[in-house]
Amino acid sequence: MTSTKIWTAGMVVIGDEILSGRTQDKNVAQLAKWLNVQGIRLAEVRVVSDDEAAIVEAVNTLRARNDYLFTTGGIGPTHDDITVDAISVALGVDVVVHPKAKAVLEAYYADKGGVTEARLRMARVPDGAELIENRMSGAPGIRRGNIFIMAGVPHIMAGMLDALTGTLEGGAPLISETLGCWTAESEVANLLGEVVKAYPDCQIGSYPFFREGRVGANFVIRCTDAEQLARCVGELSTKLDAAGYPVTPGGIALR
Amino acid sequence: MTSTKIWTAGMVVIGDEILSGRTQDKNVAQLAKWLNVQGIRLAEVRVVSDDEAAIVEAVNTLRARNDYLFTTGGIGPTHDDITVDAISVALGVDVVVHPKAKAVLEAYYADKGGVTEARLRMARVPDGAELIENRMSGAPGIRRGNIFIMAGVPHIMAGMLDALTGTLEGGAPLISETLGCWTAESEVANLLGEVVKAYPDCQIGSYPFFREGRVGANFVIRCTDAEQLARCVGELSTKLDAAGYPVTPGGIALR
Repeated sequence: MTSTKIWTAGMVVIGDEILSGRTQDKNVAQLAKWLNVQGIRLAEVRVVSDDEAAIVEAVNTLRARNDYLFTTGGIGPTHDDITVDAISVALGVDVVVHPKAKAVLEAYYADKGGVTEARLRMARVPDGAELIENRMSGAPGIRRGNIFIMAGVPHIMAGMLDALTGTLEGGAPLISETLGCWTAESEVANLLGEVVKAYPDCQIGSYPFFREGRVGANFVIRCTDAEQLARCVGELSTKLDAAGYPVTPGGIALR
Repeated sequence: MTSTKIWTAGMVVIGDEILSGRTQDKNVAQLAKWLNVQGIRLAEVRVVSDDEAAIVEAVNTLRARNDYLFTTGGIGPTHDDITVDAISVALGVDVVVHPKAKAVLEAYYADKGGVTEARLRMARVPDGAELIENRMSGAPGIRRGNIFIMAGVPHIMAGMLDALTGTLEGGAPLISETLGCWTAESEVANLLGEVVKAYPDCQIGSYPFFREGRVGANFVIRCTDAEQLARCVGELSTKLDAAGYPVTPGGIALR
């Protein structure tokens, strides 16, 4: 097996509303799935409050040790939207008004009362940044170097990801297969361990569930190499079968 | 206003399934809400993969700067469940079999094939730990000093939190009120900013939404002091009303 670079991304979720439990984050899963398709692995996530020092620490740590860093949240017009300011502090650059972002906001708010001072906040970017198209509402996302500053509202974030699709360098996409089995995962833990050892380039996750009064587990096998994935899936199937637990290819649906 | 200690917790979510996007995390919001009632603020969250070095770094950083640290995930019987081992490394203590955990598992699996080697993994704890009752299934949670090692399956995690209710020292619970308003948040950003400045002990979050073709926002005001909260809510209501945006007490429901 040739050694290939694994491209990674870090993510910083910014917002008191996540840490207070008021809002259920959906952007981690959304970004993770999108990154898989780009051949980039989501390596770590931090959720921080609307606090400059917390944002600066998380951004500077994760941007240094990943190829890409995504942030979500805190780019609206109100007092608690401090993401652009905090990232500018992290980078040691000024906050400037981006002329194109200002033009976008002027067009968007033309029939909605115009661009007020508060709305103009959404045209502010770290010096040196370019824009990410927002196909859903007015204020654009922001790219500065390897940092991608995205909206927190999931469907707006989705539109921004869509605008970025195919523009980021990545490796081979991670592909996966799922096998379902009516077994307690503790019954097959040793068997699983043997397959994990035999296929070091595959990751195997074990996800137990309870349904209709029975225990079962779905095993998800992930690899960037289709041939190795197929061999690993084959060996795991054979071993589970031999142990008396026939597999359901594709996994057992939970609803 | 007397200065009072703010009790904080950090959280480490452990699991490749969250970072791959396969599983939508629900434990952050669940823990956050439970902590609010205990008078403890969730200050930061990290999501890390099933990787010893990543878990050690996150656990050691967050346990040092928070009163409490909660982890979720990675305490099952399979090869990818390495939370107990990693936390023991972080603490510099041995992994030992907890006799009571072993007894609990023996009782739980008595009519399910007995305690196999794989199942016995779930009785392993960092030396010096005590157990957290699991009211939903066999394997207990683990407390070691200020670290709480919890299950990743949300309903099992919920049962463990239930067992801990009222046992942790905290401050005054954070209380909150919500005001809804049919306005673009950018229309009232300055007004909000004024109220934020006048009430430094209250936090005000602004949560915009789109519904039935109109834009609106819910404003959530949080404080540990009921009297200050009431005054802040009163002033914000008055100002919004005066600006031509009558408020809906309790917030505008989104569905």
